[in-house]
Amino acid sequence: SVEKKILVIPGDGIGQEVTTWGQKVLTAIARNYHHTFTFDEALMGHVAIEATGSPLPDETLEKARQSDAILFGAIGHAKYDNDPTLKVRPEQGLLKIRKELGLYANLRPIKLFDELLEASSIKPEILQGADILFFRELTGDVYFGEKKRSEDRNTASDLMIYHRYEVARIAHKAFAAAQGRRKKLCSVDKANVLESSRLWREVVLEIAKEYPDVETEHMFIDNAAMQLIKDPKRFDVVLTANLFGDILTDEASQIAGSMGMLASASVGDAIGFYEPIHGSAHDIAGKGIANPLASILSAALMLDISFGLKEESSRVIKAVEATLRQGYRTMDIANKHTPNDFFLSTDQMGTKVLENLS
Amino acid sequence: SVEKKILVIPGDGIGQEVTTWGQKVLTAIARNYHHTFTFDEALMGHVAIEATGSPLPDETLEKARQSDAILFGAIGHAKYDNDPTLKVRPEQGLLKIRKELGLYANLRPIKLFDELLEASSIKPEILQGADILFFRELTGDVYFGEKKRSEDRNTASDLMIYHRYEVARIAHKAFAAAQGRRKKLCSVDKANVLESSRLWREVVLEIAKEYPDVETEHMFIDNAAMQLIKDPKRFDVVLTANLFGDILTDEASQIAGSMGMLASASVGDAIGFYEPIHGSAHDIAGKGIANPLASILSAALMLDISFGLKEESSRVIKAVEATLRQGYRTMDIANKHTPNDFFLSTDQMGTKVLENLS
Ligand SMILES: CC(C)[C@H](C(=O)O)[C@@H](O)C(=O)O
Ligand SMILES: CC(C)[C@H](C(=O)O)[C@@H](O)C(=O)O
Repeated sequence: SVEKKILVIPGDGIGQEVTTWGQKVLTAIARNYHHTFTFDEALMGHVAIEATGSPLPDETLEKARQSDAILFGAIGHAKYDNDPTLKVRPEQGLLKIRKELGLYANLRPIKLFDELLEASSIKPEILQGADILFFRELTGDVYFGEKKRSEDRNTASDLMIYHRYEVARIAHKAFAAAQGRRKKLCSVDKANVLESSRLWREVVLEIAKEYPDVETEHMFIDNAAMQLIKDPKRFDVVLTANLFGDILTDEASQIAGSMGMLASASVGDAIGFYEPIHGSAHDIAGKGIANPLASILSAALMLDISFGLKEESSRVIKAVEATLRQGYRTMDIANKHTPNDFFLSTDQMGTKVLENLS
Repeated sequence: SVEKKILVIPGDGIGQEVTTWGQKVLTAIARNYHHTFTFDEALMGHVAIEATGSPLPDETLEKARQSDAILFGAIGHAKYDNDPTLKVRPEQGLLKIRKELGLYANLRPIKLFDELLEASSIKPEILQGADILFFRELTGDVYFGEKKRSEDRNTASDLMIYHRYEVARIAHKAFAAAQGRRKKLCSVDKANVLESSRLWREVVLEIAKEYPDVETEHMFIDNAAMQLIKDPKRFDVVLTANLFGDILTDEASQIAGSMGMLASASVGDAIGFYEPIHGSAHDIAGKGIANPLASILSAALMLDISFGLKEESSRVIKAVEATLRQGYRTMDIANKHTPNDFFLSTDQMGTKVLENLS
């Protein structure tokens, strides 16, 4: 049995509503398997700005460094989206914690639960069997390059920049993962236009030689955005830069039926950081109807990747599967045949998963 | 009856095979409607590098400036994709001609022909009725910002940059187009992370006030990549930057059944430039199986936008529709129920359209 310190950062919007279920599932697992998980909580994003003036208070960063893993919710608020001139913004908190903790590799597994085959806008025969693991670079690219606004405010720029070592370290992780899967890796870039992509491609071509058992392919981002929908089964591991990964993984959520199903793990130098792919979803925040499964599946990733608790992790995934098999659905994953009064609330859905866990 | 000078630039790969059909259709229209279209031809891309050392020979640019409209094919070659260190690259030709001719607005209409409802990987009920007009900015962004490689070749960067006037001029075009359609405009950016996107959003928020009859929405690129597949019908006019537009429109090709169906018009200061959205497609180049409809529909856009010949333009579109209704399909738009020997070659398909034109 293990002892772990877990920091919970619910963040903004539905982050608050769903993260509590990720935490409850971790608590249940600790009880069932006699582990000791101690939880602390901290602020980040809009809620942190409101409380402290900063999107990432020092205290949060301090607690993060002292924890074994972090369960995060979501970030963002409509206020900032409608006023692009605001200087202090929730997202800065998320970007800063990724950078400070060296979370350079964001793993986003995209896999459809068979029970949700009908929930997607994509045809079931196109989806069935699709199973993709994205490696999105998370601490470089245009996200972190210098941002400038001219004195007269008429010109704005962001530097899209990569260093060789940044590409190399995530490429090694992605190739190693491919070796443990179907041995295919697709690296996505825009090397026909961008110098940073040409560096990216150079490095991946070079590193591919060290993994001769992995079949490597290079694809332009525009084509990849199309192929992902046209034939998702052709992909195994997808390796890409920060911005392209942001776009492709959101798009890929349609392969899993709904954004509300997708978990992610950010890893790198030390601590692991686990979060749903979905955002703070202002439009449904506070209504209690968000899907808690992405947070619960993020907890499952934490058990596996940060704590090496494979059995416990797959127990959580099986509980989610069982819940879906029993026909329980939140609004986002219901299909048009589901009667309206059959949608579960966040709490009802979370409760069903807990029941299936014990 | 009108007199027009049209420059044909077939470019690379399947560009050569399909552009000839766009041209034949223009010739047929001229004959039917007693117009005088004179054609000239020029080199661009890999074929131009092979012949002259430059991806955009001065002669091509000269001819372009003297023409009333340009019909272009595609650009790119596998040789460059596999060697990111090559200095002279086909795509430079396309980027340079866009810049030199001031083609700052790339219009990409995405509309499914009813006959192709089954050809897409997306469910028919999601697609039916979808009709989107993309306005992709085409002469700014990270495509044209300064590119750098460090002395030791270990660091590479591209500057993502926008000026206020660049955003404003395409925004006005997009809002005006929305007024003539369903009066909805969605501007796509990444204003929660990028300074250039915050400028973009500022300008669009400002200009929207001048078009109070248009319902304006702002969406992050990651969310847009998802919504496009989840619910394409929610979009009318989509306005976005160069890189985001490149990605979204390729993705959107799945809404139209196939990339082989999509035409685009690049306009701005003077001349119009018409091209399929698809690329040079090395994998099928030379086999005579590429779909000529995107080039033919590009010709239709030219008739409408550059020459104001609305009747002639819709005559071409109707001929394409008729051809599809008769059941003729190239490989890319056949559905799984089409028997194999029923695929048409590029030339057979083009011939059918010509027959339907007269
Ligand atoms: C909220 C935002 C800054 C973030 C990103 O773009 O990385 C989000 O979209 C994500 O994918 O985690
Ligand atoms: C070939 C390439 C430079 C081009 C682009 O990225 O603009 C193409 O993908 C397009 O969309 O026209």
